[in-house]
Amino acid sequence: MASAQKKLAVRKAARRPAAKKPAKPAAPAFQPTKLKLVRPVPSDIDIAQAAKLKPIALVAEEAGLKPNELVSYGTDKAKVRLTVLKRLARAKNGKYVDVTAITPTPLGEGKTTTTVGLSQALGAHLGKKVFTCIRQPSMGPTFGIKGGAAGGGYSQVIPMEEFNLHLTGDIHAITASHNLMAAAIDARMFHETDQPDDEKLLNAFCPKAKDGSRRFAECHIRRMKKLGITAATPDDLTTDEKRKLFRLDIDPATIQWNRVVDINDRMLRQITVGQGPEEKGRTRTTGYDITVASEIMAILALTTSLEDMRERFGRMVFATSKSGEPLTADDLGVAGAITVLMKDAIMPNLMQTLEGTPAFVHAGPFANIAHGQSSILADQIALKLVGPDGYVITESGFGADIGMEKFMDIKCRYSGLTPDCVVLVATVRALKMHGGGPKVTPGKPLDKAYTDENLDLLQAGLPNLLRHIQNARGYGVPVVVAVNSFSTDTEAEINLIREAALAAGAEDAVKCSHWADGGKGTKALGEAVIKATHKPKDFKFLYPLDAPIKDKIEAIAKFYGADGVDYEPEAEAKIERFTQAGYTNLPICMAKTHLSFSADPNLKNAPTGFRIPIRDIRASIGSGFLYPLVGSMRTMPGLSTRPSFFDVDLDLVSGKVKGLF
Amino acid sequence: MASAQKKLAVRKAARRPAAKKPAKPAAPAFQPTKLKLVRPVPSDIDIAQAAKLKPIALVAEEAGLKPNELVSYGTDKAKVRLTVLKRLARAKNGKYVDVTAITPTPLGEGKTTTTVGLSQALGAHLGKKVFTCIRQPSMGPTFGIKGGAAGGGYSQVIPMEEFNLHLTGDIHAITASHNLMAAAIDARMFHETDQPDDEKLLNAFCPKAKDGSRRFAECHIRRMKKLGITAATPDDLTTDEKRKLFRLDIDPATIQWNRVVDINDRMLRQITVGQGPEEKGRTRTTGYDITVASEIMAILALTTSLEDMRERFGRMVFATSKSGEPLTADDLGVAGAITVLMKDAIMPNLMQTLEGTPAFVHAGPFANIAHGQSSILADQIALKLVGPDGYVITESGFGADIGMEKFMDIKCRYSGLTPDCVVLVATVRALKMHGGGPKVTPGKPLDKAYTDENLDLLQAGLPNLLRHIQNARGYGVPVVVAVNSFSTDTEAEINLIREAALAAGAEDAVKCSHWADGGKGTKALGEAVIKATHKPKDFKFLYPLDAPIKDKIEAIAKFYGADGVDYEPEAEAKIERFTQAGYTNLPICMAKTHLSFSADPNLKNAPTGFRIPIRDIRASIGSGFLYPLVGSMRTMPGLSTRPSFFDVDLDLVSGKVKGLF
Repeated sequence: MASAQKKLAVRKAARRPAAKKPAKPAAPAFQPTKLKLVRPVPSDIDIAQAAKLKPIALVAEEAGLKPNELVSYGTDKAKVRLTVLKRLARAKNGKYVDVTAITPTPLGEGKTTTTVGLSQALGAHLGKKVFTCIRQPSMGPTFGIKGGAAGGGYSQVIPMEEFNLHLTGDIHAITASHNLMAAAIDARMFHETDQPDDEKLLNAFCPKAKDGSRRFAECHIRRMKKLGITAATPDDLTTDEKRKLFRLDIDPATIQWNRVVDINDRMLRQITVGQGPEEKGRTRTTGYDITVASEIMAILALTTSLEDMRERFGRMVFATSKSGEPLTADDLGVAGAITVLMKDAIMPNLMQTLEGTPAFVHAGPFANIAHGQSSILADQIALKLVGPDGYVITESGFGADIGMEKFMDIKCRYSGLTPDCVVLVATVRALKMHGGGPKVTPGKPLDKAYTDENLDLLQAGLPNLLRHIQNARGYGVPVVVAVNSFSTDTEAEINLIREAALAAGAEDAVKCSHWADGGKGTKALGEAVIKATHKPKDFKFLYPLDAPIKDKIEAIAKFYGADGVDYEPEAEAKIERFTQAGYTNLPICMAKTHLSFSADPNLKNAPTGFRIPIRDIRASIGSGFLYPLVGSMRTMPGLSTRPSFFDVDLDLVSGKVKGLF
Repeated sequence: MASAQKKLAVRKAARRPAAKKPAKPAAPAFQPTKLKLVRPVPSDIDIAQAAKLKPIALVAEEAGLKPNELVSYGTDKAKVRLTVLKRLARAKNGKYVDVTAITPTPLGEGKTTTTVGLSQALGAHLGKKVFTCIRQPSMGPTFGIKGGAAGGGYSQVIPMEEFNLHLTGDIHAITASHNLMAAAIDARMFHETDQPDDEKLLNAFCPKAKDGSRRFAECHIRRMKKLGITAATPDDLTTDEKRKLFRLDIDPATIQWNRVVDINDRMLRQITVGQGPEEKGRTRTTGYDITVASEIMAILALTTSLEDMRERFGRMVFATSKSGEPLTADDLGVAGAITVLMKDAIMPNLMQTLEGTPAFVHAGPFANIAHGQSSILADQIALKLVGPDGYVITESGFGADIGMEKFMDIKCRYSGLTPDCVVLVATVRALKMHGGGPKVTPGKPLDKAYTDENLDLLQAGLPNLLRHIQNARGYGVPVVVAVNSFSTDTEAEINLIREAALAAGAEDAVKCSHWADGGKGTKALGEAVIKATHKPKDFKFLYPLDAPIKDKIEAIAKFYGADGVDYEPEAEAKIERFTQAGYTNLPICMAKTHLSFSADPNLKNAPTGFRIPIRDIRASIGSGFLYPLVGSMRTMPGLSTRPSFFDVDLDLVSGKVKGLF
């Protein structure tokens, strides 16, 4: 059918002689925003607040968007309508670049900063059309431990307060729709158990109208189709059909739908609900996750259209019935309402970098229990907007073992896009840690080993970089190493990394100073990326989708460098069950620590001789992946004794946010 | 000081000879949107979706707003910056009209519809500048029981989907900031109890910088001021001061800060948190309220500036210490972050009516445990924008016993504004119910008594109307009765109401058909309101603020028609405690049923010989009122067996919301 559509498009195009080359949008020439580099480099928030912002309508116009494709939220941010995809359906895509990293220290190695800096270099210094596509961060941690997600130094997406707080409300929409479903699950159990009489239950679900007639709700009709019930009206249902249609008979022990909140609230990790006297003893142990762990967030990131999103919401499985039937949001009748709540969130959010290049900030699913990528729709729109001579720079969460693997095998699989280049961010600091350097702890000063030249330590850590290069090359895509440099790094250290990277098959390895210098500091990286994206590529997935579940998991384990996989009985049973249920043609989303190739965060560098233990495996049917749990993943952070919200306040004179970072 | 400021303003004005009359904004002439009235009247959503929308920028321009005072959220809604108040500081206010109602049936008597219809009449049919100021509804109930809050029929604020769902995210901002504070409370208790050593606690709160120095956080400095501690650095604190400053020593039994969610989730009414193994047994019984019950919402509605809002957030009391000290958001160090999260929410939301007149939709606190009024800021801005020849129509929640009383004694007390007219909405239906008609139940057909002429029943119910008229007149404000008419009402019935109302001292009593006819159907009401607002008024509050707490409660009880007040021991103790704590100069916000003048919802009409029982009394120190509990108030609704979300979905072709109402 896709092929038939293509033929049709070709035929249509042939009919219109002038339409061979799609008309380019008459966008005004891009004008970079000039940076005034201050020394020493001020704090992120000071740089961001001192920045000159273009009106977002101008950013959009320069990017080739039409005014009616823009939904402005004030003058600094806007949503972009999906209609642009229809308008540019026949436009050629730009080059697609994924920024990933070596296995990081707990401080992070500057992946977002490099993503933004590289964009600034391409757009503001190398005359290329460019788009940055990154994730929207969770708001909760912003008030916990300091650290923004908008980049840093002179490579940031602005305004950073908007970026890190409400933005345009997408995460709030997810919180609301996720919790609506949670309330619907508990209310449904309450009402079904409160009304043991099937006739009376029918009466409640399909009450008589004034004329005595009864009608099905839309969700009843969907469920009837699933169950093969053909009754024309509720009165035509047989006794058995009534019970099947109206009683979901939810097995409380199987509910896998927690509630969510975008706040670090550790006391909600495990709770008991239903203790009010009106709930008549229907208590239940459950818990909260942070909102970005919601399946609705993963769907937002993976969906390719409104229709696709509606369909994915409908098939989200929240539990099984007591007889083992998987129960979905459509069975509950809540997927339509969720779609309505999410109808604006599906539009990517347009912002800008410090040098005035356009950026999409859209979706931010967890990178362990979910796939950790910004939205497919933002990338698709951006690739059309920049056109064949342009560049879309996106970032995948965590190190390349997790983030890049999921970018390739999950995101690209659903989008149909393939990258033209992988940028692998490395730091001297992280490589020294892999070489055996002392523990790196957030908030504590770095050991001398990291701030003085130490070629031996660095050399010892290079295998981590090399395995990541090898892994990326395995996808058939050119690799460029970006050395995110610090003032304490020496020339000899940078050269050592460069030589090793080239020897391992990287197209190039380039020192970058975008944190201090903005796009000027990644000009060389930009040039290397331009070159690399023009190399031939031979993209291939790590595993075929139709392989057995275990084969797919084992392919990924091998990719990590593991000797094999150990399944706990729960995981074995689930794999058996998922295989029977037909959940086979789905990609695998490993929930593993990002601090090691292995399952043990303390096993640094490029370990061998280890095995990957699979504790359990879960299905995210709406998102469309299975996620094996390699160890226990925390889905609700906490607040420290001295949380960063202590410093956050509004300057009542200037109206500016103080102390956010 | 206010007087000194006035003098200064007068002096400044005198210096500039041309500035005596403030320059009027050069707004374009208002163009009403023409209604096409369809018969029979379609559903609310069909009317709303068929409506022609003016671009919100045009609505703003017509209303006299400058482009830089507008923060557009797409083309249909916008926020209005508070800077407009500074620009129009010397402009004269328009006429201020409060729409209230007789004691309603459970179906409601069309107060919002009348508010909107009256605005449409004044603006689109009588050539007056007008602004509608109403509450933003809670989103949760939208998915529970059908029934919007944007008005109805041909008197609506549009787009109604935006109005009833996310709007511009104000309620989401409240949810987030309220829950941040809840998490902060529990995390603080956790860390204080987890660290019994005061030295180590100081270390966590004021860690040493690289140079060995320690600094206080802003919240420490605020708390030191409160406690009278004068240490210059953390190292200067005495042992006793350390304990007092860093240990809030929260008494868990006194915590009066639930979590909130804008979803009908009955299972969260009572829950136990902290059951995760990492919480080490620190479980606690607590619960969730629906978001609009949050004190943060009440503050949003009552605040008069950003400074005032910051200050109110800071003084919100969430518990007392084990030694009885009231503990505030500022003690917790979270009020600044809450202010940052609420900095956009403070700007009123601009929308439009079906006939193109401007409307502010801003804040929507509960009408029982809070004061149930839209925001002061929206009213203040609107009154300046319409100018001395214009009209601002606002609505107060529930019947006049609750809503109007709180409008006068709480909202007007904090705003400094006083109304020029009260519009009292009455229906034949409700008056017949008060006269002894059969029970009125939502979702069930009305009894014949309501649909056939029945003058005796109506006559018997008139005392309810008359007591409300008398009560409104007691404030020294002219009263106009709006009879919201139904097709089944007869001429004789309307006349009976009219004569009784006039005899009771109403300026006029007018039949209205705005639901079917839009502003054309309230033209006569508009004319009566114009006349009434030009009558002399002699505004007075129901009670002086400095009266003892019990005197104020008793004044309100008398206003209801009660013989007196009975206090339960808990209430007695609290009144004693609040009096000692100095919470005396605060208005009273009665949490009473709206279905009767009395505390018993079944006691209809204008009962006498009853007493008001006060179960408990609570303090909302940030909002600035005390709220006695007259019976138990539900602050978390539930979902029915067949919730209205069953019908809600997105039309994937048109992109329109289906089945919302």
